[in-house]
Amino acid sequence: MKEPEQQPQDDSGHYLALCGGIGGAKLALGLSHQLKNRLTVAVNTGDDFQHFGLYISPDIDTVIYTLAGKNNKELGWGLENESWNFHNAMKKLGQESWFQLGDRDLATHITRTQLLDDGKTLTEATHFLSKKFCIPSNIIPMSDSPVRTMIGLKGSGFIPFQHYFLREKCQPEVDRFKFEGAELASPSPDFVSILNNPQLKGIFICPSNPFVSIDPILSIPGLREKIKAHPAPTIAVTPIIGGQSVKGPTTKMMQELGMEQSALTIAQNYADLIDGFVLDEQDANLKCDIQKLGLQVKLAQSLMQSLDDRINLARSCLDFSRSLMPTNSVSQ
Amino acid sequence: MKEPEQQPQDDSGHYLALCGGIGGAKLALGLSHQLKNRLTVAVNTGDDFQHFGLYISPDIDTVIYTLAGKNNKELGWGLENESWNFHNAMKKLGQESWFQLGDRDLATHITRTQLLDDGKTLTEATHFLSKKFCIPSNIIPMSDSPVRTMIGLKGSGFIPFQHYFLREKCQPEVDRFKFEGAELASPSPDFVSILNNPQLKGIFICPSNPFVSIDPILSIPGLREKIKAHPAPTIAVTPIIGGQSVKGPTTKMMQELGMEQSALTIAQNYADLIDGFVLDEQDANLKCDIQKLGLQVKLAQSLMQSLDDRINLARSCLDFSRSLMPTNSVSQ
Repeated sequence: MKEPEQQPQDDSGHYLALCGGIGGAKLALGLSHQLKNRLTVAVNTGDDFQHFGLYISPDIDTVIYTLAGKNNKELGWGLENESWNFHNAMKKLGQESWFQLGDRDLATHITRTQLLDDGKTLTEATHFLSKKFCIPSNIIPMSDSPVRTMIGLKGSGFIPFQHYFLREKCQPEVDRFKFEGAELASPSPDFVSILNNPQLKGIFICPSNPFVSIDPILSIPGLREKIKAHPAPTIAVTPIIGGQSVKGPTTKMMQELGMEQSALTIAQNYADLIDGFVLDEQDANLKCDIQKLGLQVKLAQSLMQSLDDRINLARSCLDFSRSLMPTNSVSQ
Repeated sequence: MKEPEQQPQDDSGHYLALCGGIGGAKLALGLSHQLKNRLTVAVNTGDDFQHFGLYISPDIDTVIYTLAGKNNKELGWGLENESWNFHNAMKKLGQESWFQLGDRDLATHITRTQLLDDGKTLTEATHFLSKKFCIPSNIIPMSDSPVRTMIGLKGSGFIPFQHYFLREKCQPEVDRFKFEGAELASPSPDFVSILNNPQLKGIFICPSNPFVSIDPILSIPGLREKIKAHPAPTIAVTPIIGGQSVKGPTTKMMQELGMEQSALTIAQNYADLIDGFVLDEQDANLKCDIQKLGLQVKLAQSLMQSLDDRINLARSCLDFSRSLMPTNSVSQ
């Protein structure tokens, strides 16, 4: 049955990226440019919520819009060329306005909600939308079951992620997280398949917030162990450059959790799971400390401002991954 | 307990209008200008349907938007200053595009759907929306139960009203109607209250399509009998001028049903229910024939092009109604 591969192995291997929203999606776009249909992006759905009766999946939408090249570059979220007439009409009706739904974006939410109401899974709905946006890579939810990221406020209870992130604008002090429903959730079917696919040559943890974007994915029973045990190299890309998160509350959370605001902390966080760590050139001084964790380190220009930056970082990640591949499975 | 009324009775009496969409809403607007909170508009909900998971109530929306002065005058339906970015995004996702949902209009549908999903009745949802649109009159659905107008096509089966009206653009030949669910439906609570209210001084049947706008209302068990037996005068306003319907497929349907395309046919249709008929001045030649049906006839300029036309026709209707009121209940 097994014919020898005609193509060089580098062109046939499949890759998996674990991804949150905006920061992670930038690398996912670079990887998608390089890998096309040989990339699966498993996306955090811990931020998903119901709003105005619609099922909203913020990170999946960000990944779809970004990989389609249709993300709003000015706002940093949502769709390009967006209008807000629905949003303003809802405000006039006295509806909550902390989550801004653009007129074009709404088509995504209504279509997804309709597909789910018709009995489709979140995987199927995501696949449908991805295809309509002409995305060659396979974007999948981490799970078809509900897992909800809850933010524990210092001296207080938990609030849902979107309330913390948008309604409270990340102001409250955070001291713990939980992922409701995770213990009963399974990875989505394509997530299981890709991890079982012998063509899987590398796993990337995108530069997303580890606490609220990647940990929800890893909270699904069995996934952490499966990734850890996988023969393909697992590489995390730092979301911290020069002690600052490029976007979002990562370093604010690190401070509140009593952690050093440094790429080293991120590397420590993933140390038992990964083989390699992509560190920004600015943070070269941390290289030795990260190597001491037993990790290979690649220095790269990890701030992604242009499309070229995204593609270049993706290339660095792929080169790094290939260099870490067990020798018996490397073609050259 | 009962103090004598301080106001003249004309200012304290309440009026009820039965109404479909666009044509009927024009008179309802005129009546609302005159009567403010002394008007209840009971609206056809036979056209209501679910679209993209949203509960859409086309005639209620038309009446709300018209009475709020926010209807789209160019299109003749929907909201003014509308944009279509959601609609176009849905088309790109391959969704059905025969029912155009404007970006601003969508706020109405999403809010209504949410209220219904939260367990509110259609009456409560309509009340909420009417208040947000600052409408002084009481707009109510004919029923809180589902009644669905089905159009019987000649030599074929039934299709839902919206499919006939928008998807098929009223092209197929019609030979019968049914109102699914009517036999199990009750009038909405405010509809019952207003009919039992001793202050109800007049009932108007707006110039709407009798077959698909007014008959669905009258199909609700008990309503026809209650209106017929009511001591207040019931007056129908012709939707036909010079043998033509001002808007919509009324005369096309009359032709297909083998009826004469004339205001006389409309008067005959309502003859057992009404006391008076408002006939357009153009059709003065029909006055005697309508009187022979046992009806009082008022000639009026019934084509409503301007707001003044709407108000003037409303005034004529109110004067006519007062003139038909049983003498023992008239104050002057």
